[in-house]
Amino acid sequence: MKIIHTADWHLGKLVHGVYMTDQQEAVLEQFVDLVANEKPDAVIIAGDLYDRSVPPVEAVQLLEKVLFKINVELKTPVLAISGNHDSAERLAFGSSWYRHSGFYLQGKLAGCFEPVRLNGINFYLVPYAEPGVVREIFQDSSIQSHDEAMRRITWEIEKNIDPNEVNILVGHAFVIGGKTTDSERILSVGGSGCIDSDCFSPFTYTALGHLHSPDAIRHDTIRYSGSLLKYSFSEAKQRKSVSVIEIDSKGNLAIKEKSLTPLKDMREITGYIDELLDPAFYETQRLEDYLKVTLLDEGALLDPINKLRAIYPNILHLERKIDNIDLEKRQTLRLVQTERKTELDLFSEFYNEMTTSEFTEQKRELMTEVIDSVRKEVLFV
Amino acid sequence: MKIIHTADWHLGKLVHGVYMTDQQEAVLEQFVDLVANEKPDAVIIAGDLYDRSVPPVEAVQLLEKVLFKINVELKTPVLAISGNHDSAERLAFGSSWYRHSGFYLQGKLAGCFEPVRLNGINFYLVPYAEPGVVREIFQDSSIQSHDEAMRRITWEIEKNIDPNEVNILVGHAFVIGGKTTDSERILSVGGSGCIDSDCFSPFTYTALGHLHSPDAIRHDTIRYSGSLLKYSFSEAKQRKSVSVIEIDSKGNLAIKEKSLTPLKDMREITGYIDELLDPAFYETQRLEDYLKVTLLDEGALLDPINKLRAIYPNILHLERKIDNIDLEKRQTLRLVQTERKTELDLFSEFYNEMTTSEFTEQKRELMTEVIDSVRKEVLFV
Repeated sequence: MKIIHTADWHLGKLVHGVYMTDQQEAVLEQFVDLVANEKPDAVIIAGDLYDRSVPPVEAVQLLEKVLFKINVELKTPVLAISGNHDSAERLAFGSSWYRHSGFYLQGKLAGCFEPVRLNGINFYLVPYAEPGVVREIFQDSSIQSHDEAMRRITWEIEKNIDPNEVNILVGHAFVIGGKTTDSERILSVGGSGCIDSDCFSPFTYTALGHLHSPDAIRHDTIRYSGSLLKYSFSEAKQRKSVSVIEIDSKGNLAIKEKSLTPLKDMREITGYIDELLDPAFYETQRLEDYLKVTLLDEGALLDPINKLRAIYPNILHLERKIDNIDLEKRQTLRLVQTERKTELDLFSEFYNEMTTSEFTEQKRELMTEVIDSVRKEVLFV
Repeated sequence: MKIIHTADWHLGKLVHGVYMTDQQEAVLEQFVDLVANEKPDAVIIAGDLYDRSVPPVEAVQLLEKVLFKINVELKTPVLAISGNHDSAERLAFGSSWYRHSGFYLQGKLAGCFEPVRLNGINFYLVPYAEPGVVREIFQDSSIQSHDEAMRRITWEIEKNIDPNEVNILVGHAFVIGGKTTDSERILSVGGSGCIDSDCFSPFTYTALGHLHSPDAIRHDTIRYSGSLLKYSFSEAKQRKSVSVIEIDSKGNLAIKEKSLTPLKDMREITGYIDELLDPAFYETQRLEDYLKVTLLDEGALLDPINKLRAIYPNILHLERKIDNIDLEKRQTLRLVQTERKTELDLFSEFYNEMTTSEFTEQKRELMTEVIDSVRKEVLFV
């Protein structure tokens, strides 16, 4: 059996204020061609189809167009789950109808413990879920972390699994061994967002989404396909591809990466402004790419962004090396400070970042009470 | 052939700040039972399935549940169009898949000129569309009003219609002969929102949505089913029902109304506060109903709303007769004033209503220029 594994399309994504929809459409056209050529038995999309719970209309139309081509025109079964960026309820509307055409879209945990069976292979579609949701479903107050939640889910699946068959799990999670990029939200405090890869030992293959690089975990049977496109400059050096997996009836895997070529690459360039504005340099460059430019110059520069944009129209971010040094200093300082902070200080900073109103003495007192009462609860439960 | 015709569900509707989702769910359960008992060959939903383009998640879940029961469990074909309250693109996501199960959901005009054929009957599903959209599609600048737009659409349909067959149009529009209620937006300036009923003469039956009363038009072959529930106090005296239509092969119609019973009625009561708080009166009342209360008392009253709510918990609106008289006076005055206003005055009022910033002298000058230039354009084109 041949499967194409992709994830993290993030349709409707804005990067530094620029909608990626055109870029996404161009790469998805290549993806549809790939499906047409490879003729896989199934396509897996491991979550974050959209970038947010209410995506823009253009993103909705693009997703429908692409899925229609793959599932209806090319008659390829599609197995998809919702990720942390999707609204499970909104995305999954209509999934009962989609199944008739072999489009299996799992938004909620209910039902994810039963496999979708295709060509004798069992697919377990496990959408992203907060530990609190899993705790509710199983009425098990011991489930606090993502690891505990996923462990409970896979245990439920294992109860009825036949280890002599090929069993594939599709998930959207932060599995340990991976490295994060700054386009992912910071998931964890003290590691509670991470899941140990041994959760997935019952499965022949685990097709993951969430981390954006295919190198995020190195494991024989657990894999991130990586995102469709580079979605932040921290991903500038990542390969972007989809995975083509061949599985024989004994569960042996052969994995290939197929790269997709964006219209515009996303990359960083560093130098002195005069170098960057020198034709000898810029004539070697793909000028339309999305760029983060770091200038090495010290001292005042007159309107550098507009001078640079005259040559490189798609600069998304400009910074000065000198700023970076400052920033690094500040971050080091911040790290040192963070370690010493009380819950109240942390909340007060959070409040100031998220609102425009003052964190008054009255609010401080109220919050102190809340923190104290939570402490007591934790002690007495 | 038997058809059930409904429209204007407005799922996710807020009435005076209260979500109607529970009420809608209760009535839709009755609707599903009706479908199960009547066993129609099709269910028509003539637009405004949702109340807004991005409905709350509860409304999304309710719609999916109800449609699943009707279309998948009861195996009843469903013919639905988007109304002016729906987002055509968001609602119609997945419609290509739904067709496989006999759920025909038309969001856009493209494709609406070809009928859906069920049991030898042709259904033309014409979603709500602004005249500008129809103008674009047909590249016909003469299309300015809703009447011209619908005339162009039905003319396109008529080209290929067989008048010896039974042809049904499903539409969402303000057809003349109807009377509006204040839960509808005012559509028209100088009648441009209205459509003459003769547009629909080629059709055996025209199943409409948009106006909320089954009495909105009196015509042998054109009908509003009316909304699912009362959605404003101006609808307090309307019957709420769905229409059961039987059509024989010669196109003869037999129409019955089937009423649905809400958990809470929506109605108005008027009286002096002492009367309304008198057990002799209120013991004859369904106290849980949604109420608009008009008090006849003059002079000061101490906290009347809380006194009344102790008996009638679901008062949505309280007014004093005395206020009404004032209001009527003010409205008459306003009407007189409106007639004399310049475009600039009207815009300035609009600006003040819509923004919190001042309509400064500079803005006034700018707007004067804009108005003048538009005037010139109108003169010279």
